[in-house]
Amino acid sequence: MLRAVRAELLESGVEGLTVDRVAQRSGVHRATVYRRWGDVGGLLADAVRAARDSAWTPPDTGSLAGDLTALAEEVVGAHQGRPTLAVALLAASFRSEAAATELNGFWSDRLGAAVAVVERARSRGEVPEGTDGEAVVLAVTGPLLQSVLLLGRPVAEPDVEGLAARVAAAAAAGLLG
Amino acid sequence: MLRAVRAELLESGVEGLTVDRVAQRSGVHRATVYRRWGDVGGLLADAVRAARDSAWTPPDTGSLAGDLTALAEEVVGAHQGRPTLAVALLAASFRSEAAATELNGFWSDRLGAAVAVVERARSRGEVPEGTDGEAVVLAVTGPLLQSVLLLGRPVAEPDVEGLAARVAAAAAAGLLG
Repeated sequence: MLRAVRAELLESGVEGLTVDRVAQRSGVHRATVYRRWGDVGGLLADAVRAARDSAWTPPDTGSLAGDLTALAEEVVGAHQGRPTLAVALLAASFRSEAAATELNGFWSDRLGAAVAVVERARSRGEVPEGTDGEAVVLAVTGPLLQSVLLLGRPVAEPDVEGLAARVAAAAAAGLLG
Repeated sequence: MLRAVRAELLESGVEGLTVDRVAQRSGVHRATVYRRWGDVGGLLADAVRAARDSAWTPPDTGSLAGDLTALAEEVVGAHQGRPTLAVALLAASFRSEAAATELNGFWSDRLGAAVAVVERARSRGEVPEGTDGEAVVLAVTGPLLQSVLLLGRPVAEPDVEGLAARVAAAAAAGLLG
């Protein structure tokens, strides 16, 4: 069922998604879909929840700049060049309050896991005690997401590496504490 | 007409927007709306274009940290606590390719104007020559937009001030060149 939702999202976008289309694609009776998911909002929320539940571990390259680069490349890759599932799920969050709540949860979970790269940098002595892990991660992902999603600017690998290196340097200098 | 589009967006969101509803609210004949705007996508693109065309000048408080704080407060205020017009226009960009293009233009225009705060800081000697104006602005707005739009986290004034101060310090230290 979720596979059918994802396929529909990638093919036609969130706009044209209906319970009937999903039922038809998945071969599940529409009455069953309505009973279990209620409406399109419920289907979308479940699609985001599935992304949220998928296992994810942050990169571990041995350096903060390397980890931040890998992290940022993953975030950019997921949102660049439509249609991507991540962008479709973001669009879905504007259509369904339940999907929006799940999307917030997805990002919170990922951010919570991603701060491990800063904790490892701290234990290696790369950044001082008291460095704010969330601030470091957001300093890399925030500007890149603004570029890709709002400015509609393609982000290339050197941009990502440059930003990751700058943020790692700022963190090392104790400016993100 | 654009007033009707904005009112509909704030009241019912982008989801329920139709040419008929806008025509009814504005008192303009639907045939006229179709002739001039084509479809809902055209109406949405025009609504974003109107926001883009509205006059805007960046803050000028006398210090980089002050300007970045004022800038960030404006961006956060526009996107926090739904429904806001900015969020509705962002949602619209997922429904209409033309609206998406205008939204990208809106953000590019604003970013292009906002770098003036960094140029002024440079001429005051607050930040070194070669400081990247766009990088400074995005370092403040990017993480805040990610917090508000993706993490669904309320951003408070001290958060904004703290981030603006940190970014100003990093720029002063030559780390955003």
